[in-house]
Amino acid sequence: MPQTPFEGALSPNALHSLSGLEIVRGMRDGRLPVPPLVLQFGFRPAEVEAGRVVFSATPDARHYNPLGTVHGGYIATLLDTAMGCAVHSKLAAGHAYTTLEFKVNFTRAITTATGEVRAEGKLLHLSRNIATAEARLCDESERLLAHATTTCLIFSAARPRTAPPA
Amino acid sequence: MPQTPFEGALSPNALHSLSGLEIVRGMRDGRLPVPPLVLQFGFRPAEVEAGRVVFSATPDARHYNPLGTVHGGYIATLLDTAMGCAVHSKLAAGHAYTTLEFKVNFTRAITTATGEVRAEGKLLHLSRNIATAEARLCDESERLLAHATTTCLIFSAARPRTAPPA
Amino acid sequence: MPQTPFEGALSPNALHSLSGLEIVRGMRDGRLPVPPLVLQFGFRPAEVEAGRVVFSATPDARHYNPLGTVHGGYIATLLDTAMGCAVHSKLAAGHAYTTLEFKVNFTRAITTATGEVRAEGKLLHLSRNIATAEARLCDESERLLAHATTTCLIFSAARPRTAPPA
Amino acid sequence: MPQTPFEGALSPNALHSLSGLEIVRGMRDGRLPVPPLVLQFGFRPAEVEAGRVVFSATPDARHYNPLGTVHGGYIATLLDTAMGCAVHSKLAAGHAYTTLEFKVNFTRAITTATGEVRAEGKLLHLSRNIATAEARLCDESERLLAHATTTCLIFSAARPRTAPPA
Repeated sequence: MPQTPFEGALSPNALHSLSGLEIVRGMRDGRLPVPPLVLQFGFRPAEVEAGRVVFSATPDARHYNPLGTVHGGYIATLLDTAMGCAVHSKLAAGHAYTTLEFKVNFTRAITTATGEVRAEGKLLHLSRNIATAEARLCDESERLLAHATTTCLIFSAARPRTAPPA
Repeated sequence: MPQTPFEGALSPNALHSLSGLEIVRGMRDGRLPVPPLVLQFGFRPAEVEAGRVVFSATPDARHYNPLGTVHGGYIATLLDTAMGCAVHSKLAAGHAYTTLEFKVNFTRAITTATGEVRAEGKLLHLSRNIATAEARLCDESERLLAHATTTCLIFSAARPRTAPPA
Repeated sequence: MPQTPFEGALSPNALHSLSGLEIVRGMRDGRLPVPPLVLQFGFRPAEVEAGRVVFSATPDARHYNPLGTVHGGYIATLLDTAMGCAVHSKLAAGHAYTTLEFKVNFTRAITTATGEVRAEGKLLHLSRNIATAEARLCDESERLLAHATTTCLIFSAARPRTAPPA
Repeated sequence: MPQTPFEGALSPNALHSLSGLEIVRGMRDGRLPVPPLVLQFGFRPAEVEAGRVVFSATPDARHYNPLGTVHGGYIATLLDTAMGCAVHSKLAAGHAYTTLEFKVNFTRAITTATGEVRAEGKLLHLSRNIATAEARLCDESERLLAHATTTCLIFSAARPRTAPPA
């Protein structure tokens, strides 16, 4: 099974020698490749610090559901990305994570009229093998559009990173 | 604010005169437009009955996360779509739904080696104003890759359908 | 069906004439009855303001699970109580709520050695018919023991309050 | 820190020499102590097989919330117990689990008029270090009252069982 089946994948070397914060910052600064789904959805890392990562995005009509608003899946992808990077940003070199679960609440409909949105992901808890994080999505007036929490499993990247959490 | 800002949106007329089952079947049969995110991700409605909808999909490298597996956001979008359509398929003409929240568990990593996956969404509960549903994602060997549950708010489509759940 | 089958139930009159903040404060101050499960578990309302309610508690061996730590159900009850009261504290007289769902993360085991814990519930979103809230449980050293989010349905208390959320 | 601070706790010996199925069946048959919260809430293990455990209970006025229905915390405790035992029932001797998170949906209000309820917990996924499970709560007419899912961390009981998941 190919370890890097797309251009945006991190090389095994990057995963082993860089800390999570260096990896997330490298993506923000264009020094490391960004995964294709993040590119395609136009998610932009706006702020990156250890344990807190903000992504901005401007959803458009390509992201609509049948009912005329932005698909919950797009919103979930944005919040999941912010939470995952917030977790990753606290991991030492040689460690990786996989998402066990997340839950998203949608509190306001998002349309093409919403404009730019910001997803702030924050680490809540980190132990040897488990991390939890939360994220909030707001519009430019700081109105809450959605919020989420996640549970991640932490493991040594020496284990093949395509290994299932299970 | 435009009610149908993209080609795939349902017309207000369709929402008012067709039952949810007719709408979901219309999408499956190509008689009604499919939303762009569903097209883009290649989700295919495979089975549609009242209260149960199955989508199939074949994730590829465009849907990868930085760690070399399919992004949880793609998987969440697929499960959310199956659950939403399962709820929709039980609504009478003139009614619509909005997703209040969903939770997804990821039980096995998905890669380009996984092949076709199937997401089966099932209605669990439907009352005047609330519905809940679940979905399971399996590969062709019926191994469980992910599972999810959702809570939806039901409302009369006479209310503007871009109204927030909140 | 009896509307007030136990001593601690609020009278229909109280539900109609008092705001949620007055009700939660009345419980804290001993002017209104506290529900039996809250009494039995020893949950003490410590801080009550509009949209934010803190409960304290000291779990003991009666609340243990088979594995020798405090049962997740006890922790969930405490967080659910804090979140529900945070929602209630923002409702005008004549309105009530019912919990549609909640999710709890358990981040540190709780034992009889943990001592007093504090659950802080905060309203995140409130609209005409939906509220969301979060809660965090910490020990006296502010270490995070558990955290939760919830979705509530808001309705006029004129509807019989034993009506299902669904 | 005491390992067995209450009469109902399993001895370290039991945890090491018995399989999870033997432990859950031992509780059902009265050969092993049942934890106090389970006793206090009147949860009765009704059916126990590997990967599937059913508890029955009859909630009463002692379990009410301020709004005149059974507290969500009681319902969550019952579903958590059924899910936890379903996971436990598949673990070999020398292994234990801790609950990382669960989510509960409440679909119908429960009152003293509801009568006996049954919570069926089922394992969904089990790997070396992670398990997921679901549970459904029904009344005697098989109406769905609540449903839940959970994520558990599996570990060797050689690790002190009061260790945090985190």
